[in-house]
Amino acid sequence: MKRTDRIAELIEAARGDAASDLVLKNARIVDVFTGRTMEAAVAIKNGHIAGLGEYEGAETVDLQGKYVAPGFMDPHVHIESSMACVSEFARTLVARGVTTVAADPHEIANVLGAEGIRYMLKSAEGQPVDIFFTLPSCVPATDLETSGAKMTVADLEPFMGHERVLALGEMMNFPGVIFRDPEVIAKVEMARRFGKPVDGHAPGLSGQDLQAYLAAGISSDHECTEVSEALERLRAGMHIMIREGTGARNVEALASIVDWRTAPRVMWCTDDRHPHELVEEGSIDHIVRKAIRLGVEPFAAIRVATLSPADYFGLKDRGAVAPGRLADLVVFEDLRKPEAAMVFKRGRLVAENGKMRPDISIPSPVEISPSMNADLSSLDFSVPAEGKTARAIKIVPDQIVTRQTFFEPDIRDGFALPDVERDILKMAVVERHMGSGKVGKAFLKGLGLRQGAIASSVAHDSHNIVVAGTNDRDMVAAVEEVVRMGGGLCFAREGRTAAKLALPVAGLMSTESVHAVSEKLDRLVGACKECGAAPKDPFMTLSFLALPVIPELKLTDKGLVDVGKFQFVPLFVS
Amino acid sequence: MKRTDRIAELIEAARGDAASDLVLKNARIVDVFTGRTMEAAVAIKNGHIAGLGEYEGAETVDLQGKYVAPGFMDPHVHIESSMACVSEFARTLVARGVTTVAADPHEIANVLGAEGIRYMLKSAEGQPVDIFFTLPSCVPATDLETSGAKMTVADLEPFMGHERVLALGEMMNFPGVIFRDPEVIAKVEMARRFGKPVDGHAPGLSGQDLQAYLAAGISSDHECTEVSEALERLRAGMHIMIREGTGARNVEALASIVDWRTAPRVMWCTDDRHPHELVEEGSIDHIVRKAIRLGVEPFAAIRVATLSPADYFGLKDRGAVAPGRLADLVVFEDLRKPEAAMVFKRGRLVAENGKMRPDISIPSPVEISPSMNADLSSLDFSVPAEGKTARAIKIVPDQIVTRQTFFEPDIRDGFALPDVERDILKMAVVERHMGSGKVGKAFLKGLGLRQGAIASSVAHDSHNIVVAGTNDRDMVAAVEEVVRMGGGLCFAREGRTAAKLALPVAGLMSTESVHAVSEKLDRLVGACKECGAAPKDPFMTLSFLALPVIPELKLTDKGLVDVGKFQFVPLFVS
Repeated sequence: MKRTDRIAELIEAARGDAASDLVLKNARIVDVFTGRTMEAAVAIKNGHIAGLGEYEGAETVDLQGKYVAPGFMDPHVHIESSMACVSEFARTLVARGVTTVAADPHEIANVLGAEGIRYMLKSAEGQPVDIFFTLPSCVPATDLETSGAKMTVADLEPFMGHERVLALGEMMNFPGVIFRDPEVIAKVEMARRFGKPVDGHAPGLSGQDLQAYLAAGISSDHECTEVSEALERLRAGMHIMIREGTGARNVEALASIVDWRTAPRVMWCTDDRHPHELVEEGSIDHIVRKAIRLGVEPFAAIRVATLSPADYFGLKDRGAVAPGRLADLVVFEDLRKPEAAMVFKRGRLVAENGKMRPDISIPSPVEISPSMNADLSSLDFSVPAEGKTARAIKIVPDQIVTRQTFFEPDIRDGFALPDVERDILKMAVVERHMGSGKVGKAFLKGLGLRQGAIASSVAHDSHNIVVAGTNDRDMVAAVEEVVRMGGGLCFAREGRTAAKLALPVAGLMSTESVHAVSEKLDRLVGACKECGAAPKDPFMTLSFLALPVIPELKLTDKGLVDVGKFQFVPLFVS
Repeated sequence: MKRTDRIAELIEAARGDAASDLVLKNARIVDVFTGRTMEAAVAIKNGHIAGLGEYEGAETVDLQGKYVAPGFMDPHVHIESSMACVSEFARTLVARGVTTVAADPHEIANVLGAEGIRYMLKSAEGQPVDIFFTLPSCVPATDLETSGAKMTVADLEPFMGHERVLALGEMMNFPGVIFRDPEVIAKVEMARRFGKPVDGHAPGLSGQDLQAYLAAGISSDHECTEVSEALERLRAGMHIMIREGTGARNVEALASIVDWRTAPRVMWCTDDRHPHELVEEGSIDHIVRKAIRLGVEPFAAIRVATLSPADYFGLKDRGAVAPGRLADLVVFEDLRKPEAAMVFKRGRLVAENGKMRPDISIPSPVEISPSMNADLSSLDFSVPAEGKTARAIKIVPDQIVTRQTFFEPDIRDGFALPDVERDILKMAVVERHMGSGKVGKAFLKGLGLRQGAIASSVAHDSHNIVVAGTNDRDMVAAVEEVVRMGGGLCFAREGRTAAKLALPVAGLMSTESVHAVSEKLDRLVGACKECGAAPKDPFMTLSFLALPVIPELKLTDKGLVDVGKFQFVPLFVS
């Protein structure tokens, strides 16, 4: 249909000159513009809202006074953290009333570069959630590890004009911005040239450094943890995304900044949510409920989940229940506890009572090349004893920072050994992009495992294979299983796989449902815990041990990194 | 300078790694994001704000605690109503702290079509105010009169992508929208395709008709006069521009709708301000003061004058005092009565104490073709008496609507005569675009003139020459003077010009200063009033008598129009 005909048809329905496709009667409409409700029918034509008032339609649904809000939007999320592919992620989100997301394919881009972005763009087609993207700005994060790809301005530019690309994604390299790294500035300039915002990521940045970061044209931040920090950013013109992920949870600390003055400049986001939390708690809907519980006025909490992100990205076709906008709607009973009873996407009922409807088909997973290219032919985790005292990475419970500690390993036949009694395991990072056979080795304190080994191809940001264990044999078995699965998580014991989760999409994502992934992951974690694993989620802990931008001591495939000094250090100190 | 270098220089200044060009010390910054003040210095580099904090600059101005707000923006104004050309309009506005406008060149486009728009675009270059445009959507307003131009989708489209074009201008033809006139829908679709908003203009539209107008994608309205009307529009997703022009003044009625909930969706605009009010009262600055006096919180009143219109048009580079944005700033003493003590445009001090600084040069007026093409060779205002009872247009004091009245004219030699004793004058509209010699004639009640005649080439919307007088000889003299001047206003008495104002630019605008125009106009009005003219501004009254879209009885060059029936009617009824 021609665009002009489509407009004419919508006007016709709005005037009541023609019947609408669908009319939602007896609705209590959440008006995010003035912060109150309006009792009226919602008329829908060709997937758009024609009008609010009294209408007749080919089909009618009596909402019996239930609330109708705009579909929620998540303005910053890494789909990869759900460990589900786009289709299954969409299935889970739409059931929660989230009808639009801006996803940052940072993880898959670190593995597969432009191919990963193309895969995500293609996967987004035909989903019951509108999946937009922000382009990963920092691939790779550092050159202290071997990544699967490097994305320069020239690599990103072909994507910048794509209709699904809303912004340049989180600019984590804030030193690159404020110290004017030409490649970083060129990326920012490119986004601005396309008229698209640049998402920020600048924990702790303040004062003149913050002013400099903003002067560059960075538009938002989702890393605030304190009120003073959030206020400094808001007042300097930054949009704030208040995050409630699986690890980082900032809503409780920041809910108090949300009022009608700040609401236009504030959004909720999930950033990283693991399958368990997506299934048990939800997504943006969970944040809205939590914010209301914490005292945010319901209308403001919903505005922050709808109109504010739509405005931020210039999406004029959504974010409110109003004529001309998409009929993306969430229906719920209790304004103080919005739980999606019905969800409409482009005027179609796609979910009911927390489940996507069975008549809604989601696209089959898109084909993608295997991402595992590890040379295991001479895999060897033995550590020659080059001294008496060695460094060990010490896990800080429930945090992604680590500490450095020192110990004297037992030495046998010239090799340094792990020591389960002292909770000192061996750890390694196996390069898996180039087939280089490169392996970084170290010792790890705090994992608590008394038997076996765990391995994972989810290892921020380069996603090499990280493995930690009580003995070399189980470590090898675990890594071999990860490679056999084309990526995934494994717990091996006594030389064979005890539990596993295949993540064949880039070594990051499953093609199973979020629910199935969540169950398998729970089983894996359970098996590790039975063998003594200390962290709440040992695989999550593992996935950050190879990230050399977070203090204090980390391991990459290239070796042990002192993050404070930003340089490699030897394993033995004396 | 390369854009990347410009960004790098701004970052450098923001970090304090290099000196700024200018630092405004001891500023009390109006923060429109959170609605409070911040005491800091404003650092400026290359015309942009580098940072807020403590800074050193090549030049320093100590503001001694004065307030610094973002430059004001007028999102809907017809420059032609100031009767000044773009340069002189800009000179007046910048002195008031208005640093950005979105002008709708509707009047000049009715006279000169695309050439008029090109003239305005060219005139906007190098001004101390950023002059953007909205494209006139309704040229001509009707085919009941002869206009100078017709602007179709094909005529508008070449301008739509211009960087100074922000939107499609006020869509006055709301029947065309809601009854799906294909040409009207095509114009709306075009603007949406370019990702630009469509300004509305829909007085009195309500219910399903309003929903239909919005379903088409109309974004704003500036015609609200009542709270209920404004709220209905806001809640349906419309942005509201609250207008305070010379004629239409809505701030008093609508100030109460402005609070922090609605502020992001509300703007102030002037629409039509005549030279006298621009000089005496001001522009958006006047509205801000009035709104505060009426109880709007100063921070909200300023947000509505700055960030809200910038956001509405997607102008991310202005609207707030924040790093990265243009250094368009207004400095004032009293937060409750902002009167521009200093105005900075792109970091340059351009105005002080209500006057543009003498060192600021404004561009010379751009060349434009003469617009007068009237055939006066057989000009004849005599009215053959084709009956006993004639219609007369009756002026309603201080309104643009008229009433129809009937009278029995004195008849001499077969011609119907005006009658000063009964306050019945003769009136005519002389076609002046095509040289057709077409003249519409009628009678007019309520002007009060006892001697002479007044004529004007400002006659909405087609701007033919409208003339009203006590006798044919003075009417001819007045029209001849208007043509001689290439357009303008004239009061003629005893067969010659008594007072005049030349408007050689399209017959609408002078090249003199707004101040000079205001004085000449005051003198003209004074002369008319001495001869009995009743309306506050008889030329303003005159300028709406040929507008056949405003009830009840109007006159065009084609004849007398019954606006209710939207058709021509004979002068004599019996």
